[in-house]
Amino acid sequence: MKDMLLFAFDMNCVAHQSQGLWRHPRDRASNYTDMSYWTGIAKTLERGFFDGIFLADVSGLYDVFEGSPRAAIASATQIPTNDPFTLVPLMAGVTSHLTFGVTGNLSLESPYLFARRVSSLDHLTAGRFGWNIVTGYLDSAHKGMGEDGKQGHDVRYDIADEYMEIVYRLWEESWEDDAVVRDSDSGIFAEPSKVHEIVHEGEYFSMKGIHLCEPSPQRTPLLFQAGTSKKGRAFAGKHAECVFIVGNNPQAQSGVVEQLRQQASLNGRDPKDLKVIGGLSVIVGNSDLEAKEKFEDYRQYGSHQGALALISGWSGMDLSLEDDKKRIGHDNGDAIRGVFHHAGVSSIQDWVDRTTVGGATETIVGSPVTVVDQMNDWLDISGLDGFNLAYTVMPECVEDFVDLVVPELQNRGLMKTTYKEGTFRNKLYGKGNYLNDSHPASKYRR
Amino acid sequence: MKDMLLFAFDMNCVAHQSQGLWRHPRDRASNYTDMSYWTGIAKTLERGFFDGIFLADVSGLYDVFEGSPRAAIASATQIPTNDPFTLVPLMAGVTSHLTFGVTGNLSLESPYLFARRVSSLDHLTAGRFGWNIVTGYLDSAHKGMGEDGKQGHDVRYDIADEYMEIVYRLWEESWEDDAVVRDSDSGIFAEPSKVHEIVHEGEYFSMKGIHLCEPSPQRTPLLFQAGTSKKGRAFAGKHAECVFIVGNNPQAQSGVVEQLRQQASLNGRDPKDLKVIGGLSVIVGNSDLEAKEKFEDYRQYGSHQGALALISGWSGMDLSLEDDKKRIGHDNGDAIRGVFHHAGVSSIQDWVDRTTVGGATETIVGSPVTVVDQMNDWLDISGLDGFNLAYTVMPECVEDFVDLVVPELQNRGLMKTTYKEGTFRNKLYGKGNYLNDSHPASKYRR
Repeated sequence: MKDMLLFAFDMNCVAHQSQGLWRHPRDRASNYTDMSYWTGIAKTLERGFFDGIFLADVSGLYDVFEGSPRAAIASATQIPTNDPFTLVPLMAGVTSHLTFGVTGNLSLESPYLFARRVSSLDHLTAGRFGWNIVTGYLDSAHKGMGEDGKQGHDVRYDIADEYMEIVYRLWEESWEDDAVVRDSDSGIFAEPSKVHEIVHEGEYFSMKGIHLCEPSPQRTPLLFQAGTSKKGRAFAGKHAECVFIVGNNPQAQSGVVEQLRQQASLNGRDPKDLKVIGGLSVIVGNSDLEAKEKFEDYRQYGSHQGALALISGWSGMDLSLEDDKKRIGHDNGDAIRGVFHHAGVSSIQDWVDRTTVGGATETIVGSPVTVVDQMNDWLDISGLDGFNLAYTVMPECVEDFVDLVVPELQNRGLMKTTYKEGTFRNKLYGKGNYLNDSHPASKYRR
Repeated sequence: MKDMLLFAFDMNCVAHQSQGLWRHPRDRASNYTDMSYWTGIAKTLERGFFDGIFLADVSGLYDVFEGSPRAAIASATQIPTNDPFTLVPLMAGVTSHLTFGVTGNLSLESPYLFARRVSSLDHLTAGRFGWNIVTGYLDSAHKGMGEDGKQGHDVRYDIADEYMEIVYRLWEESWEDDAVVRDSDSGIFAEPSKVHEIVHEGEYFSMKGIHLCEPSPQRTPLLFQAGTSKKGRAFAGKHAECVFIVGNNPQAQSGVVEQLRQQASLNGRDPKDLKVIGGLSVIVGNSDLEAKEKFEDYRQYGSHQGALALISGWSGMDLSLEDDKKRIGHDNGDAIRGVFHHAGVSSIQDWVDRTTVGGATETIVGSPVTVVDQMNDWLDISGLDGFNLAYTVMPECVEDFVDLVVPELQNRGLMKTTYKEGTFRNKLYGKGNYLNDSHPASKYRR
């Protein structure tokens, strides 16, 4: 039996997935601007042997519902939202093993400066940094940038492919492994002949320059991806090392997991090199009854307006114009719409109900034994490598999970009792710090 | 007698100002990628009641000398260089009062996302954040971004003025003070009618959107500026709250200080609202002799190649083509060239000698009494409000200053013995967190 991977799914905002639960008397998510809120969460996660924290992000706002951001602003639905990258050095400073998977939207920033920020964080965290590659789904983000709106879905992935080529070259090709010698005697810090200018003239980008950073522990950070549309799966099969999917049905997920691993094979990669984690929420109590009561208590604070704002933004459909009982189909459109098809959501009302506790993820409610039974079944059926746990009431839900569920997982041999040493990538695969040779980026390394 | 302002002048790299001193046996600057290097410096500065740390930055490399980056790469002359913003949450996490003045080049990043990053850091640091506004002087930074080269000097300041208008509106205008109510009972986190979309259609930028962040403690971060060309002084007089100048002659500096304060007056501001700090290096020993010996010891490790690379980049002149004895004039060109005119540098050789210990700043060498005498005289003659101390051997020079010079400064009543409470701006002026009403940005606040 292998250790499951375990991440906390979080965001630098008040209401990430579970809309309205910031109103719960014990919730502290509205303290998201305070350092102590985040250092506390980081320490709890490391105490509970979580592999890492996965930070979502949007650079726009949810203004599809009613054609206005009104509901999102009132409900704090992922707005206000602060920069997730700023949390990493803070949480890294109070932990030794916790890793960081941070969402960065490549359609908003130049590869040259983005590559620098990422390398800087991989250095500071001693290789505990991962990047969740997204192309963005909110028009409003692009309006903030002075553009008319986002690119079409398929074009976004073409742009992403070219962007990846540039950042790979900056991370892998620009500085050779033995370029930096730090030789006090000769006065040579780095050998100029081993530092190479990257010249790129492509369809969407051009650049010329050396990477501003010396090689960081992992060079290319651990690569996450979350899209599960057809183009998204192809992109993940080529680039991602860890894919995050959501869904409320482990049988349906097993098909997605299978398709993702096939995509890796099609790209000449070992399918086992692609880790897949699924979204989940857990509400645990000392007994099933206590957990059920906690769930019912949380649920009272759910915000339907917030959920409608969130779902409208995800789907691109203004749900204020729809009958709540309307059944939802799958039109092969945006990734998020595809995700919800797989999740088996049946109606808007069903979708809203789920979203107020747990957001896009299924919620397991029960005693530690019940929770672990269900998590274990889920893994067996789906073929997932682990979970990304969305928060409900924060930080209570993380503390409950660490205090009650983690010991049960450990007792059953489903979860590690010590951390592996080294970088994010080495902890995950045990094969060193760099991307392995079958990954397309490795060809740029000299 | 007023307390002098005291900042540490640093950069997320190996060789910032004093070229070659990373080779000194006690120097640790080549550990700049380690968290503990920076948390150590931060704690030492706070122990010594420094007001803050001022982080320089370049987003390109020094490739003017010999028309190549060879000398800069070999000597680690501000290359490699990591993102300075990533250091702030780390150092804020181990301090309570230390403030952060961080260089951000506004010609490289969209105002929409830059404003968000800054607000996020102002939140996390509880208002201890400042932004050093620069327009950049290295062509190579722009080539990295896929542009042909930097804009002309005067155009850069026009672009900067428009950029400032946008970020001011995001910080000051988008969210009213009472927009965020955090009302659990009503379920209203923020009042949508009090959050305003910013629509900008200008010559260089367009954007449409609300600021992604709720108002941070200072809203607009404390504003630094460092340009002292004619356009730069006009820009500083309009925008800056704290201006950083360099020079080796307090008499000459007094003229610059006067001109800067006049520019503030011309913009309808109280000239006293413009703080001016001067660059300085200090090498202190228990006696004058010990300090002199330390200086001579440091000097052996200076790198002339590194200094030539640095100065060529600053001045835009390839010094490999010049006679080292050639006298340097002032052509009213780039800001950096103007700075060196004021610093009274007489020849390339003179410039290189100065740069190996202290960089662009004058170096004071002596016992605590000698150092404080000279610092005090300097302040009296120049009219400066304080100093920005460039490093030599790191972190030894900071520890020496804190252990030897700070007590002497305090004994003579030149320096505070406790920190003032509150935000960066409140610590500096004692008049609250926001920009005062005579600053041009204040007109955007509702």
